[in-house]
Amino acid sequence: MPVITIDGPPINDLETKRFLVRSLTRAAAHAFAIPEEKIIVLLHESRPDRVAVAGTLISDKKEKRSKLEGEISCV
Amino acid sequence: MPVITIDGPPINDLETKRFLVRSLTRAAAHAFAIPEEKIIVLLHESRPDRVAVAGTLISDKKEKRSKLEGEISCV
Amino acid sequence: MPVITIDGPPINDLETKRFLVRSLTRAAAHAFAIPEEKIIVLLHESRPDRVAVAGTLISDKKEKRSKLEGEISCV
Amino acid sequence: MPVITIDGPPINDLETKRFLVRSLTRAAAHAFAIPEEKIIVLLHESRPDRVAVAGTLISDKKEKRSKLEGEISCV
Amino acid sequence: MPVITIDGPPINDLETKRFLVRSLTRAAAHAFAIPEEKIIVLLHESRPDRVAVAGTLISDKKEKRSKLEGEISCV
Amino acid sequence: MPVITIDGPPINDLETKRFLVRSLTRAAAHAFAIPEEKIIVLLHESRPDRVAVAGTLISDKKEKRSKLEGEISCV
Repeated sequence: MPVITIDGPPINDLETKRFLVRSLTRAAAHAFAIPEEKIIVLLHESRPDRVAVAGTLISDKKEKRSKLEGEISCV
Repeated sequence: MPVITIDGPPINDLETKRFLVRSLTRAAAHAFAIPEEKIIVLLHESRPDRVAVAGTLISDKKEKRSKLEGEISCV
Repeated sequence: MPVITIDGPPINDLETKRFLVRSLTRAAAHAFAIPEEKIIVLLHESRPDRVAVAGTLISDKKEKRSKLEGEISCV
Repeated sequence: MPVITIDGPPINDLETKRFLVRSLTRAAAHAFAIPEEKIIVLLHESRPDRVAVAGTLISDKKEKRSKLEGEISCV
Repeated sequence: MPVITIDGPPINDLETKRFLVRSLTRAAAHAFAIPEEKIIVLLHESRPDRVAVAGTLISDKKEKRSKLEGEISCV
Repeated sequence: MPVITIDGPPINDLETKRFLVRSLTRAAAHAFAIPEEKIIVLLHESRPDRVAVAGTLISDKKEKRSKLEGEISCV
């Protein structure tokens, strides 16, 4: 019955998604000592304009970085 | 003030959605002995490639089943 | 696999808790057209000093009301 | 490490989103007495047909109001 | 910045808790291809009278099982 | 109807809690352009042995730091 919820960036590759839910399920089944059949995993995919760290949206951080890299590469 | 959150498959039929939020609200209002006006329901719709049970994505389970049914119906 | 989470005041009566989880499960099973066995309900009990409406903790609202009632009953 | 999650209507204006995550982060950093770098904000945008108050979907409330306004403006 | 939340039964053994958060963090860091420092894990411990499967509280299921086992062992 | 949930360390001082819920409510009311009466805040207090960053429980990080400080102060 344990429920694992992950809020993270979108995962485009299906194989990576499979790896993630399999690994989380195994770890939880082992820690709770219950069968894997009872574990539910929910992936909440968050776009970078919907997550903030230190008060700044991830989408803004990326822009800053890209600009900086642009300037550097222009030198 | 109670908040009910449901993570479930998308519901396409609007009438079914209405039934769901009405039923959940009534049950909660009754159990908490508070007016229905105070109950909030949030529907989080999860695509089958974002939910896993027993370490397997729901979208993968469906494919397996469909394949199997395909093979059976081909007999 | 749907997961229903309720953030609400503590329910002390076990029979009321049973009613709540049974009602929510039935409504969800009906709406999603899936067996009740697949529905999980999580009760998150929130103390009144951990919930706020309109920017005021529930525990503070109760105090105000009690004071008011005290004053009225003293008349 | 505190995580702030907001379930609310979609915010289309990027500047408003920035204001929201900045304000929430500042308030939390101040209250928990920890650096802003440690605060994460997750915006869960909920469409009006996925939120209900008092057992009625927000999208249905709006329709009712619009109809009413329509009738009034037709007089 | 990914946040992993687990709603599960209480874990009393500290070493098991450490194993769980380490395993979940590693799996997520690998899948999202980001450093482990950015991963947050929140353990929400749920008592058996606050979780239901198939409309029945876990605490009630255990009682039923215990009773049954009691009867069997009495034979 | 927006719901703000905060997973953070316990706040013992009631005045700080009041400041936090008031600030979060004001910011959200402003950003969503809706009255404060519609905003709900839920405080989920997480003990340091139930939160991990970078795969390490907060309670373990504190111990390490305390030990280190102990050693330094012993010099």
